[in-house]
Amino acid sequence: MGPHPAVADVRRAVREALGDLPQGDLVLAACSGGADSLALAAALAFAAPRMGLRAGLVTVDHGLQAGSEDRAAKVAALPLDLEPAEVLPVKVGTKGGPEAAARDARYTALKDAATRLGAVAVLLGHTMDDQAETVLLGLARGSGLRSLSGMAKVQGIYRRPFLELGRSTTVAACRQLGLEPWEDPHNDEHRFTRVRVRKAVLPVLEGELGPGVAQALARTAKLARDDADALQEWAERAFADCALSDIPGKVTLAVPALEDLPGAVRRRVIKRAAIDAGVPSGALSAVHVHAVERLVTEWRGQKGVDLPGGLTAVRRYGTLILAISPIP
Amino acid sequence: MGPHPAVADVRRAVREALGDLPQGDLVLAACSGGADSLALAAALAFAAPRMGLRAGLVTVDHGLQAGSEDRAAKVAALPLDLEPAEVLPVKVGTKGGPEAAARDARYTALKDAATRLGAVAVLLGHTMDDQAETVLLGLARGSGLRSLSGMAKVQGIYRRPFLELGRSTTVAACRQLGLEPWEDPHNDEHRFTRVRVRKAVLPVLEGELGPGVAQALARTAKLARDDADALQEWAERAFADCALSDIPGKVTLAVPALEDLPGAVRRRVIKRAAIDAGVPSGALSAVHVHAVERLVTEWRGQKGVDLPGGLTAVRRYGTLILAISPIP
Repeated sequence: MGPHPAVADVRRAVREALGDLPQGDLVLAACSGGADSLALAAALAFAAPRMGLRAGLVTVDHGLQAGSEDRAAKVAALPLDLEPAEVLPVKVGTKGGPEAAARDARYTALKDAATRLGAVAVLLGHTMDDQAETVLLGLARGSGLRSLSGMAKVQGIYRRPFLELGRSTTVAACRQLGLEPWEDPHNDEHRFTRVRVRKAVLPVLEGELGPGVAQALARTAKLARDDADALQEWAERAFADCALSDIPGKVTLAVPALEDLPGAVRRRVIKRAAIDAGVPSGALSAVHVHAVERLVTEWRGQKGVDLPGGLTAVRRYGTLILAISPIP
Repeated sequence: MGPHPAVADVRRAVREALGDLPQGDLVLAACSGGADSLALAAALAFAAPRMGLRAGLVTVDHGLQAGSEDRAAKVAALPLDLEPAEVLPVKVGTKGGPEAAARDARYTALKDAATRLGAVAVLLGHTMDDQAETVLLGLARGSGLRSLSGMAKVQGIYRRPFLELGRSTTVAACRQLGLEPWEDPHNDEHRFTRVRVRKAVLPVLEGELGPGVAQALARTAKLARDDADALQEWAERAFADCALSDIPGKVTLAVPALEDLPGAVRRRVIKRAAIDAGVPSGALSAVHVHAVERLVTEWRGQKGVDLPGGLTAVRRYGTLILAISPIP
């Protein structure tokens, strides 16, 4: 008799995520002690030796809750046969709000630990439910494909084996394996947007639109990511075709080449040109990009378009120039 | 003193939607008597004569509610200076469920009326809120960019001038113009998915994620539509590059050309090839497309892939053949 289906699922997911790694490499599971990352650590401990890999565990102590130090120590001491098993204490700042600051501190600590320990990959326990939440948060921003793409399965040293498994699977796997997950009290705090999405928004969507909404959102993320990658590839080629000069402070594009592109690609090329020229990427809005586009598509001799960072876009003799103002 | 801002907004939106039409043309407003389409009809009656256009009204009697005939007659008799002003009685079937059947009957009647009356355009009163609902419904299907694209601003003879205006604007415009909108009791019936999205889902999203969710969803629709159009264009060109033969019953594609494409484009090309070959488009799922794709990207001598409609996909000597099975 094989293992319980949930246990088999988490093990298979981890095995598939590591298939490309050469024997002897070290892989770390990032483990908070919650059900998702606990199932992840257990699955890694099971799969790694069978694949000739070494497996370790790291747990971040954010220092934000009373007793967090003890909690982290307990996670590092779990009898999972993972070695090394380390606590990574971090200092959480305030930049970007409490959720973003904790995330930044966590990823910095994980990356540093991977470098120090010589790990080739760090596994993260994000599930399909986390992915669905991420897509909804991106949707509420309304900033297009990239914000609907959710989290990547592989992103630098990070790998997310559970993006196609539901949270119920990790909970069931822990139960079957006799592992007791820690319930992070932050997961109940409604001041966090993500918690409100999880507790208030997704249940209403499931209730009103029928079950399977989380799966549909996760599918959307995957499709959106592939579509965004393809458009990015096109935009990069198109930029190379359009760019007559590309130096910081001044990018010049050929208008006829821009005219031939579909709007979605043309606007990506303009965005790329503006950032190359020196516009701070965070400050560049869709309104700016559209205004520059109109110099191409609705040309009637209009003046230059002011851009953030002290730049201007003007049209001159069949070229579009994005440069530090004033353009002589 | 100019008109109330809401009245100015609906008039401007209609004017902009008709800017390309030559003088003397006839435009129809499709009007249910609800706030959106009532504001639309009033704005058309105002704008059309000032643009040298003729303006009429059509109202569909779905025959689904007691007194619907009287209601439709009242809408056609509104003192709006629209001529012709006609009731279009339709018989609603059952295909696809009550909402889809009513929509099909309505659009058929509108199209027939436009042809019969010689109208070049039919205006529809869909607002930004309708668009947001459509995007959420598409999201719940999880079938990618096209299902996130919502409704088009222009689609054949149909035009939707209000896609960037909120429902609150049409309601305010009616109030200012002394027009009393009809409240369709169907708009309160929770058995309709769209009604549940409007009454239960969107308010929760707005409440938990902050105001502006409807705008964000409408922005997403616009971006998704442009992105989908661009990818479609790429896929059509790529199909032309890949196709060695393209006849009903048998489409042959060059594997090396398919290998060079990003996944999002390759899968669109495969989908197009399958449909050209004879697979019923409604029956072709993402699972089928992925299985065919693996004949290209994960080739290890596997067997053919069965497709709906009695077709098979096989790989032979560097070509991918989609044809009626059995392929000899």
